[in-house]
Amino acid sequence: MVNLRSILTVSRQLNYCLQTRAYSTSKPDVGFIGLGNMGFGMANNFLSKGFNVTAYDVNSSATNRLKSNGGVVASSPEGVFSASDILITMLPNNEIVTSIYSSSALGVARKGALFIDCSTISPSLSQKLAKSVSEKSDGSAFVDAPVSGGVNAANSGTLTIMVGAESDAVFSKAKSALDAVGRNVIHCGGVGTGQAVKLCNNMLLAISMIGTSEAMNLGENLGLDVKLLASILSTSTGRCWSVDTYNPVPGVMENVPSSNEYRGGFGTALMTKDLGLCQEAAKDSDSSTPLGSMAHQIYQTMCNNGDGDKDFSYSFQALSKKML
Amino acid sequence: MVNLRSILTVSRQLNYCLQTRAYSTSKPDVGFIGLGNMGFGMANNFLSKGFNVTAYDVNSSATNRLKSNGGVVASSPEGVFSASDILITMLPNNEIVTSIYSSSALGVARKGALFIDCSTISPSLSQKLAKSVSEKSDGSAFVDAPVSGGVNAANSGTLTIMVGAESDAVFSKAKSALDAVGRNVIHCGGVGTGQAVKLCNNMLLAISMIGTSEAMNLGENLGLDVKLLASILSTSTGRCWSVDTYNPVPGVMENVPSSNEYRGGFGTALMTKDLGLCQEAAKDSDSSTPLGSMAHQIYQTMCNNGDGDKDFSYSFQALSKKML
Amino acid sequence: MVNLRSILTVSRQLNYCLQTRAYSTSKPDVGFIGLGNMGFGMANNFLSKGFNVTAYDVNSSATNRLKSNGGVVASSPEGVFSASDILITMLPNNEIVTSIYSSSALGVARKGALFIDCSTISPSLSQKLAKSVSEKSDGSAFVDAPVSGGVNAANSGTLTIMVGAESDAVFSKAKSALDAVGRNVIHCGGVGTGQAVKLCNNMLLAISMIGTSEAMNLGENLGLDVKLLASILSTSTGRCWSVDTYNPVPGVMENVPSSNEYRGGFGTALMTKDLGLCQEAAKDSDSSTPLGSMAHQIYQTMCNNGDGDKDFSYSFQALSKKML
Amino acid sequence: MVNLRSILTVSRQLNYCLQTRAYSTSKPDVGFIGLGNMGFGMANNFLSKGFNVTAYDVNSSATNRLKSNGGVVASSPEGVFSASDILITMLPNNEIVTSIYSSSALGVARKGALFIDCSTISPSLSQKLAKSVSEKSDGSAFVDAPVSGGVNAANSGTLTIMVGAESDAVFSKAKSALDAVGRNVIHCGGVGTGQAVKLCNNMLLAISMIGTSEAMNLGENLGLDVKLLASILSTSTGRCWSVDTYNPVPGVMENVPSSNEYRGGFGTALMTKDLGLCQEAAKDSDSSTPLGSMAHQIYQTMCNNGDGDKDFSYSFQALSKKML
Repeated sequence: MVNLRSILTVSRQLNYCLQTRAYSTSKPDVGFIGLGNMGFGMANNFLSKGFNVTAYDVNSSATNRLKSNGGVVASSPEGVFSASDILITMLPNNEIVTSIYSSSALGVARKGALFIDCSTISPSLSQKLAKSVSEKSDGSAFVDAPVSGGVNAANSGTLTIMVGAESDAVFSKAKSALDAVGRNVIHCGGVGTGQAVKLCNNMLLAISMIGTSEAMNLGENLGLDVKLLASILSTSTGRCWSVDTYNPVPGVMENVPSSNEYRGGFGTALMTKDLGLCQEAAKDSDSSTPLGSMAHQIYQTMCNNGDGDKDFSYSFQALSKKML
Repeated sequence: MVNLRSILTVSRQLNYCLQTRAYSTSKPDVGFIGLGNMGFGMANNFLSKGFNVTAYDVNSSATNRLKSNGGVVASSPEGVFSASDILITMLPNNEIVTSIYSSSALGVARKGALFIDCSTISPSLSQKLAKSVSEKSDGSAFVDAPVSGGVNAANSGTLTIMVGAESDAVFSKAKSALDAVGRNVIHCGGVGTGQAVKLCNNMLLAISMIGTSEAMNLGENLGLDVKLLASILSTSTGRCWSVDTYNPVPGVMENVPSSNEYRGGFGTALMTKDLGLCQEAAKDSDSSTPLGSMAHQIYQTMCNNGDGDKDFSYSFQALSKKML
Repeated sequence: MVNLRSILTVSRQLNYCLQTRAYSTSKPDVGFIGLGNMGFGMANNFLSKGFNVTAYDVNSSATNRLKSNGGVVASSPEGVFSASDILITMLPNNEIVTSIYSSSALGVARKGALFIDCSTISPSLSQKLAKSVSEKSDGSAFVDAPVSGGVNAANSGTLTIMVGAESDAVFSKAKSALDAVGRNVIHCGGVGTGQAVKLCNNMLLAISMIGTSEAMNLGENLGLDVKLLASILSTSTGRCWSVDTYNPVPGVMENVPSSNEYRGGFGTALMTKDLGLCQEAAKDSDSSTPLGSMAHQIYQTMCNNGDGDKDFSYSFQALSKKML
Repeated sequence: MVNLRSILTVSRQLNYCLQTRAYSTSKPDVGFIGLGNMGFGMANNFLSKGFNVTAYDVNSSATNRLKSNGGVVASSPEGVFSASDILITMLPNNEIVTSIYSSSALGVARKGALFIDCSTISPSLSQKLAKSVSEKSDGSAFVDAPVSGGVNAANSGTLTIMVGAESDAVFSKAKSALDAVGRNVIHCGGVGTGQAVKLCNNMLLAISMIGTSEAMNLGENLGLDVKLLASILSTSTGRCWSVDTYNPVPGVMENVPSSNEYRGGFGTALMTKDLGLCQEAAKDSDSSTPLGSMAHQIYQTMCNNGDGDKDFSYSFQALSKKML
């Protein structure tokens, strides 16, 4: 029996085929593992740019959605590895990335495949995975390519992507694929440097955000108008993105999480995870990071107090007297 | 006997008189106490804009220099108070400001004088001084007006000045004088708010600078090119003034202290003093400032280790392995 | 009309007189200002040891209670100063101590009086007050004498008292009075050193308590039995009072606040106040105190989150996942 | 040719044999991998208590010394595994322990062997190793058994040893061997709990030591006699091992590193390594450790400044004005 929904899906898939057939023969086959909030938007962009996409995720609701947009769904990671010239992973943490790459998957991967890991993980794990890939000695290569910009940029294909690639040639190959999902694809150096840049940025972001929270709260307690304070800081030496673009004080700016009960944005639990990776990298490289370390602890404590799902600008409330 | 130097001085003084006489009858008499690096430049700008300036400092070399530029030198604070419609103080700390204002000076001040304190002190001390002045009940008023921009801006009359004034009328009167030394004179609210804004800014600046030092050092230890890292951070969410305008890593930027062996700029000891005022204000207002507090401790430790005279961006070296 | 209560009061007063008359002629007259939880117990001990006590407090319920125990109540601080050979103050903070001593009180004080301040205040304020007293040049002296041991020790006369006195003679005189309320009266050095010792101790106590909270919480999260962990730590290099005598984990020890829903004990708000004094003293003496400073911030944040009235061992709950 | 040294060595070996033969037939064969400062003393104690010891270390000077004391030297880890009923490892870090256990060594180990790891490593690594051992399904077992007490206790056989063992039976077996080197062998719970207790203790120790350093330095700056301060703190609520047994201020105590130019004792680099393990365990268990984290950063910074080889009580000097 054929129902309406099936017909619509087939029709949409045909539509994609017609749009893209002219190019698809010359495009590499793309594999995608990890269809979370970020990954789904990215995989979808590959589809809409005319790539063949084979995908895997443990969440069948996500794979069904991708299928209805024209994607092919594999029943295992191996199914994706064997069907891909370019394999993209977008996964939550070191452990899951390791398990995907430790599986028998590398063994069934296509000769000369390019592995692009967009997850945020340890630089040292990226380097370890690159070593496993290069030991295949079949022209395969691995790049780390963590992203920034959030779910909106993933959906609109305007991510910033920081790439660690062993050579300009490998970077170029990765970039030609990543241009489908990112507006700004940057070569940061050898494998692991994409992760390194992302961690350095997010550590500084966390420090600036807590610092902004402290300064705005102190100013308010000293009788300042918070909008005026934000505007002066924005043109002074204390200027930073957390002050002038993503202010953590409700009512100072529109369209930021602090003015929407700290919903949306970049969750405190995710920031805590990234800061944990920073601390691991700092420890392994004997780097002193007193404020980065303290920022990690502050966000960890916020998670423990039940606020892990709030935007990370909630640090303003966690420090101040005015609990929501 | 008349020597060449005396003739030159007299000639310069005459020159000032000729330049300025047309206006000076209608300008208020300005008093200036505190001719340090900042104060001298400011007092000098008043002279060159045609104000009569009577000044006092314990350092006779500074007063002599001002005299040779056309200033009148008083032998005591009282001598300045009694000669001024507008009295400006630019002094190093709470204690000295208190002693100047606690002296018999207020008693001999002109009726209806405007007191402008450009020192960086506690907001609560500013409020206390304002109270003493208002108790004269003769139309006198006090504003706090701390500055930012450093010695170069003091010399060129392009300071940013944050003013705490009890009313728009008092602010306007203060602004018409301060326009002689500042490019950007901002009304921040009631008395004490100028100090409050300055402290909030400098606390956030210190946090951002140490955060930048940590992120740049971590990145370098992870194998990143520091110039590339600085350029990516400058367009990302970790962006801040310490990254994009005053980078603490030698060689990343020209014309900043880090590229000049951390000479010049804003000294670590001065930053430590300002952070001490922040901590006092935070304590008195029950404000939590974990990173501000830690920044204070880090700069205090740098002072104790003998680096108080280096620019505050030396935090990069203090945390990293590469001691100068 | 005579009611039963009046008769009982008179009877009790007579009782005191009979007990103490033999000695009271040879004992100095004691004045007491500040009848809070600590002060009342101390003043009461002077009464029960046979001293004449004249007292003042803004809280009439406290003064009435003292009166019913045989004390004389003055209507102003001056009334106490003029009636005392030994004047003891037990007040909450710098500001109130300053106001009591700045009043006209010193002018009406008896010649050669000994001023004993048992409040916890800044060492520098103690020194300033001592200077004012010595300027009377009539044989008067001032000592700082902060106490430790809590309300129970105040009531039972078993406080530890740290005394800063300019000479052994002054210390001896103070000790002979303080023996009425303390079991352990220690000469710490010149004026201000009593406060200095107390602040150093309480800073280390706060650090140890938070450290213990962190270690016990980490151990529990790693699967350790908390009683076993406490007992091993108590005989190891991590041993401290917070581990072996006042453990912050509910159920590890009996008769400590953590086993009584963090009631009683030493309140978080009071600890925060003491740590604020530490930070002030550290700043004024250019001392680096990174952990002391962080402890201050942690307790301040607990106060801001509404837990100021809980015992300071509540830090265990504030950091852990298990909110009460 | 026979030289004198050979004769002496043979004589000493004979001596050991005579002393120990009566028991050695009934004693398990002991294997030892890692003859550093701690390991050598421990292995030596097994020899002197009559155990047969087969040992391996990359450092031939250490193995030669053990040989001359009667030990057998293997040329590889496998050589030790195959010769031991009880195999003890005492190694510097996670990576080296992993490599020893990942080698083919487990495959050649004796049936039913007991593996005792005395290294300080991650609790989670201990658990992973225990899993590998239990998968042999031949009655073998693994316990973690980190030690405390330093080189002197290792030499004299008086270590405290914290054991994580899956059952009382396994613990008893481990204890009967470890009694040869430790005075106090404690069962802390399941595998990994020995490490957990050691990490909790050392984190609290580091926090207490820095706290003591801060309090002693603040007190000295406020004019206190440091010996008097130490003695008062030792009987007050700030009491801890770092104050009363291992004071970091030169001259306060005899026979501690601070009175010997911070030589000997527990090196700053080793403490930094342990605190890194604490932070890893805290991160993995979502535990907030703000002061533990800051202690890690302070010791890391001391290492980066070139003081990694000084005793960890050098924190007193690192914070204070009085650089050695």
